[in-house]
Amino acid sequence: MADSARQLRLGAFLMATGHHVAAWRHPEVPVDPLDFSVYRRVAQVAEAACFDALFVADSAAVFDGPFASHTARSVYFEPLTLHAALSAITERIGLVATVTTSYNEPYHVARQFASLDHLSGGRSGWNLVTSDLAAEAQNFGRDEHLGHAERYARAREFHRVVTGLWDSWADDAFLRDKASGRFYDPDRLHVLDHRGEHFKVRGPLNVARSPQGRPVVVQAGSSETGRELAAETAEVVFTAQTSLAKAQAFYADLKGRLGQYGRGEDALKIMPGVFVVPGQSESEAKEKFEAFQELVEPQVGVALLGRMLGNFDLSEYPLDGPLPELPLTDSGQRSRQQLLTELAGAENLTLAQLGRRIAGGRGHHSLIGTPRQIADELQAWFEERAADGFNVLVPHLPGGLEDFAALVVPELQRRGLFRREYQGRTLREHLGLARPNNPFFA
Amino acid sequence: MADSARQLRLGAFLMATGHHVAAWRHPEVPVDPLDFSVYRRVAQVAEAACFDALFVADSAAVFDGPFASHTARSVYFEPLTLHAALSAITERIGLVATVTTSYNEPYHVARQFASLDHLSGGRSGWNLVTSDLAAEAQNFGRDEHLGHAERYARAREFHRVVTGLWDSWADDAFLRDKASGRFYDPDRLHVLDHRGEHFKVRGPLNVARSPQGRPVVVQAGSSETGRELAAETAEVVFTAQTSLAKAQAFYADLKGRLGQYGRGEDALKIMPGVFVVPGQSESEAKEKFEAFQELVEPQVGVALLGRMLGNFDLSEYPLDGPLPELPLTDSGQRSRQQLLTELAGAENLTLAQLGRRIAGGRGHHSLIGTPRQIADELQAWFEERAADGFNVLVPHLPGGLEDFAALVVPELQRRGLFRREYQGRTLREHLGLARPNNPFFA
Repeated sequence: MADSARQLRLGAFLMATGHHVAAWRHPEVPVDPLDFSVYRRVAQVAEAACFDALFVADSAAVFDGPFASHTARSVYFEPLTLHAALSAITERIGLVATVTTSYNEPYHVARQFASLDHLSGGRSGWNLVTSDLAAEAQNFGRDEHLGHAERYARAREFHRVVTGLWDSWADDAFLRDKASGRFYDPDRLHVLDHRGEHFKVRGPLNVARSPQGRPVVVQAGSSETGRELAAETAEVVFTAQTSLAKAQAFYADLKGRLGQYGRGEDALKIMPGVFVVPGQSESEAKEKFEAFQELVEPQVGVALLGRMLGNFDLSEYPLDGPLPELPLTDSGQRSRQQLLTELAGAENLTLAQLGRRIAGGRGHHSLIGTPRQIADELQAWFEERAADGFNVLVPHLPGGLEDFAALVVPELQRRGLFRREYQGRTLREHLGLARPNNPFFA
Repeated sequence: MADSARQLRLGAFLMATGHHVAAWRHPEVPVDPLDFSVYRRVAQVAEAACFDALFVADSAAVFDGPFASHTARSVYFEPLTLHAALSAITERIGLVATVTTSYNEPYHVARQFASLDHLSGGRSGWNLVTSDLAAEAQNFGRDEHLGHAERYARAREFHRVVTGLWDSWADDAFLRDKASGRFYDPDRLHVLDHRGEHFKVRGPLNVARSPQGRPVVVQAGSSETGRELAAETAEVVFTAQTSLAKAQAFYADLKGRLGQYGRGEDALKIMPGVFVVPGQSESEAKEKFEAFQELVEPQVGVALLGRMLGNFDLSEYPLDGPLPELPLTDSGQRSRQQLLTELAGAENLTLAQLGRRIAGGRGHHSLIGTPRQIADELQAWFEERAADGFNVLVPHLPGGLEDFAALVVPELQRRGLFRREYQGRTLREHLGLARPNNPFFA
């Protein structure tokens, strides 16, 4: 029985039609990634199951590589507008949106997340990413994406500006005194006046300090630079880890970096992604998964593989040949490239087999089995310091999330590992993260 | 009795706490501009009254001039997130958000409005503006705002990029054929590859063509350049007109410009702002209005006046002296400056009196009276080619809109001037605007 004081956190990682690349072809799966009613259903299921948050990935471009037209990944809702819509029809669940620092203005980003935090009563989170695709760069006046170092330098400064803007107003700045006519106290307003290498932003933000003080900052970088940025600035980290040992090493490494920034271990929650397909029996789970696998066209799997390895076009290589040697790129996929190269070598997989292998979990740990088997694994990772919680990837939406909520969540609750009802109102409260003080009004 | 085929359109122009600068001090007015429940109520009232749209103004900065702390204008929801939230709790009403072209990337703007159009089932509109405040420029890396000509050149190109991105996909691009695995037809995807003076944007947009084809484009510029841009690109124009004759001249001028762009008169709807305070009797209406006027601190009115005239600080001038001569600025307020200078001269108003005069309607035509009086005036403007409809400004929210819905709307309906129920589903349908063809797939 787990210590009831420490419970795991669960995020529902949403991707239109689901994480399995062939999900949309499954007869049970709604096929329009721009159908809001699917997200409405997903949000309701996740909230009824007491998930901490809904996470939405993003890219600011169409993936138009080989066989892109055979996937359902080309069009989708923009994350901030989607989450704002969901905020109006949910009460408790957190809403984490991915927004890149590479091609945005910090003032807009600070403002939209603060606005979402007010709209949702303190449930917004920002998945801070950098952009590594030429296709994105080309939508914003550039020919190529920024180099890894410059992306991260910009991201670090971007974070500083955004958090500074979030702190523009003291929590008690607004007097709203009808009698005297004083709406706010000008002494409780801070002008940031940031002048840095990448940004010059005066402020203040035209949104009051938000219910959470600051929206929760999420990151996913696992390079050395990415870990260091996370240790300094992230409050939640997503990560792809394929074994308990590797996840433990990552966990220890990242938690170990917090001290140098004066942060305690609890200030950052590590949530590996897990691709989960539960069934009443192990064979039922495997059959469910196989039903998706059978729908994967080999070229679609290989195209997905190429993207994951650093945006390579692998369509010229034979499907039944080995994974070719690929140059290390600057696109921030180094750890994934290593992981997949090892996997291909260890099991002697052809290109097509490797493509099919990542068609569901895309390199995340896969758990296909009974609720008990799945809960055993999650519990082990949680108790053995590999994870503070998990970002749950399901093959299809909304069905995969319904399965997880119906089968796995009750098993976790029975073990005392997961809440039966929300205790708090804000995403910070769900995650056990303190509300940040405003350093300008200490 | 009006021709039942031609009906007027009504927009509810929202500003937190209401348009009257002292609204927040009134005992009946909710005092938190970041309280979503107020907007929820406003949206429900406006939708029940069959308004065409909710319009939200915007600025990307805090107005921190003299006596700013005595107004409720400093913090508010960011318009796109606000409207996305409202989209989930409304069914029919249009949602028009103001977003500047001066400090944004067209890819993000195209994407968020297209996303909102999908979320709302075809109800989004973009109020395309340029930014004329140094305070905004300074939040985006600049010291001063762009000059008038450059702002408009950028806006025109911005519009071209955004509409081009909205047309990235043919309406029938998405096959979603589960059997063959073809999700879309690559021949029905257009790569914009825009290379202009201000922007280089490859595309395509990662949002499917939206229910309205393109969100409705709204503008409010009334300078020569602004009118010409509107004639070429706008589908709705807001305007401040203080008399029937002036409104008729504006209407004739703008409609007269459409032909050169191959556009018919009906392709652009002109909706002057009207500040409306209805009462069961004329004296009741006047009393209502006076209750707000009494709450205006003289310095607050003068500060508002200074902003409207082109961001001048008038706090050094005597309150009981005349409006000083002011230089014409480049901030796009020329027509307003002229209008207010004439008004001050004609009625021999002191600075404080002029400030108080614009505290409610801010230069818009004011209608304070019985429903019949108000409807007479709206009908005259509508039938005598001064307006296709009106953007309704109310002193306070939600109360002012409740008054308008309860008193004025039924009178307009009785006269056959306004719908009793929605006929269409999209904002375009409400406004009588055609769904644009996609020129890339004609």
